[in-house]
Amino acid sequence: MMTKLERYLGERGAWAEAEIKRQLKGGLAGRGAAIAFLEPAPALLRRAMGYSLLAGGKRLRPVLVMAAAECCGLAPRRVIKAACALEMIHTYSLIHDDLPAMDDDDLRRGRPTSHKVFGEAVAILAGDGLLTWAFELAAENAADLGLSGKGASELIRVIAAGAGARGMVGGQTADISAEGWPDSKLRDGRAKKALGLIRYIHAHKTAALITASLEAGAVLAQTSASRRGALREYGYRVGVAFQVADDVLDVVGDKKKLGKRGSDADNLKLTYPRLYGIEPSERIARGLADRAKKALSCFGPAADPLRELADYVVTRDR
Amino acid sequence: MMTKLERYLGERGAWAEAEIKRQLKGGLAGRGAAIAFLEPAPALLRRAMGYSLLAGGKRLRPVLVMAAAECCGLAPRRVIKAACALEMIHTYSLIHDDLPAMDDDDLRRGRPTSHKVFGEAVAILAGDGLLTWAFELAAENAADLGLSGKGASELIRVIAAGAGARGMVGGQTADISAEGWPDSKLRDGRAKKALGLIRYIHAHKTAALITASLEAGAVLAQTSASRRGALREYGYRVGVAFQVADDVLDVVGDKKKLGKRGSDADNLKLTYPRLYGIEPSERIARGLADRAKKALSCFGPAADPLRELADYVVTRDR
Repeated sequence: MMTKLERYLGERGAWAEAEIKRQLKGGLAGRGAAIAFLEPAPALLRRAMGYSLLAGGKRLRPVLVMAAAECCGLAPRRVIKAACALEMIHTYSLIHDDLPAMDDDDLRRGRPTSHKVFGEAVAILAGDGLLTWAFELAAENAADLGLSGKGASELIRVIAAGAGARGMVGGQTADISAEGWPDSKLRDGRAKKALGLIRYIHAHKTAALITASLEAGAVLAQTSASRRGALREYGYRVGVAFQVADDVLDVVGDKKKLGKRGSDADNLKLTYPRLYGIEPSERIARGLADRAKKALSCFGPAADPLRELADYVVTRDR
Repeated sequence: MMTKLERYLGERGAWAEAEIKRQLKGGLAGRGAAIAFLEPAPALLRRAMGYSLLAGGKRLRPVLVMAAAECCGLAPRRVIKAACALEMIHTYSLIHDDLPAMDDDDLRRGRPTSHKVFGEAVAILAGDGLLTWAFELAAENAADLGLSGKGASELIRVIAAGAGARGMVGGQTADISAEGWPDSKLRDGRAKKALGLIRYIHAHKTAALITASLEAGAVLAQTSASRRGALREYGYRVGVAFQVADDVLDVVGDKKKLGKRGSDADNLKLTYPRLYGIEPSERIARGLADRAKKALSCFGPAADPLRELADYVVTRDR
């Protein structure tokens, strides 16, 4: 039987999926094009972008954008474009992350990765196209809601900071630098440097974009600084919890449910399970989820889905 | 001796370069960070981003942003952040374009390409980081100038449309698809399909971002639709002229001055020189530059640098 949260996620995820499909159909055509010669994107590129966007992701980031807006009194559908923008950024990061020069993964969500289907060049370009499109959609959403220039600018800034070099892209870089970290460097009190690096990776590779999703919802809802701060704090805790849970799943999870092989151990990646073992890592994730929920104390029942989501993130099996 | 245009380009290029350096120093730190945990980007990533940004490009796109703003009565320095944003997008596209999976170039502007210095993974991420950062800077510029939400949104849309899947990224995809185009498909009236594809590639791979640069200046200056339209028309003509001239240089240019080897012939790329030969291609470029200048008839002497630039684009030797 489906839990209340699963129904909620299913419903919101379906909204995001429908909007993504709508955008894929119309959004890459020259609709109201400022530049008359801009024709639709090449069919191959559109196929590649759609292939990864519609690969059946959890739609966690769009759901978070909508949930944050709702906490702040704005109807979730009003932020649907920004929600899709965050999913596009997430999707582009997966495409690039799977490339041979990066994690070199053949499978993602149980299907061949983008470069396996379309070749590396088109996979790189599909990622670039999705990232670029995301900012256009987010800006459109700000204009739809009548935000001021400062508000629209702040929305772009929050998303770019979370996604870019001092956010997710920075975290990816750190993650790659930390690959092949030898066991010898984890022994005899030498684990401290590794711990600092793990924390940086968690905060940036994963939590930055999740936090940006929540803040994007808050900025679009034009909420108070304190409510936005609460959502930021929640995002950070839940984001790190999500990554720790992910690293645990990479070791103990069912490969079929995950739709990918666990490759962290092979790549000697720096993770909590490797540093502390499975059970202590699960306790850390649990603690983070609890602190995430505490951050939401200024919100009433409107934040209940976010509270339940914090628990879900550390108990999910895929 | 330097011509007036060369002095102009040198001065404006230096402004852009100084701002890029300022941004590289301060912009990737957590300055006024909405997300407190966002620390500076990893040093390696910052180095890679700076390496390509400061590789001595012509700074054509930033100059165009500033020149367009000036034509519309806004002081060029007021759009310096957006000018740098366009250069960041151009730079990211070069980094990704040089990757082994794409054009596989070892040299760019006389120096080893990003992936040769930093490895493929970091080169991909440096490109991603630059693209993301560009939108943040552009949005900041809109807020600095007090644009409305609609204005700020329009700026992001113009840049994203020019840079993304229905602009530059679409053009890159078409360019790659057209690689290895056999001579047999250019003979006996079979050149028509090739010509359509070449035109698509020119308009999107190159002209789209150049047009976006000019439109970005116009949007920031909050100018009239007709002036913006004139700048768009100019951008399209000059952009295509630029690419045709580039393809001619790839065949006849001095490799040392270009700082790269000519590789189009090896890759059987679709270009005007291949389809029509060198001299007819030069005539086409010349004609486009003339039509670009004609588009500026609604502007007075403020547009003179753009007029001279149109001539420069088709007579340059690097």
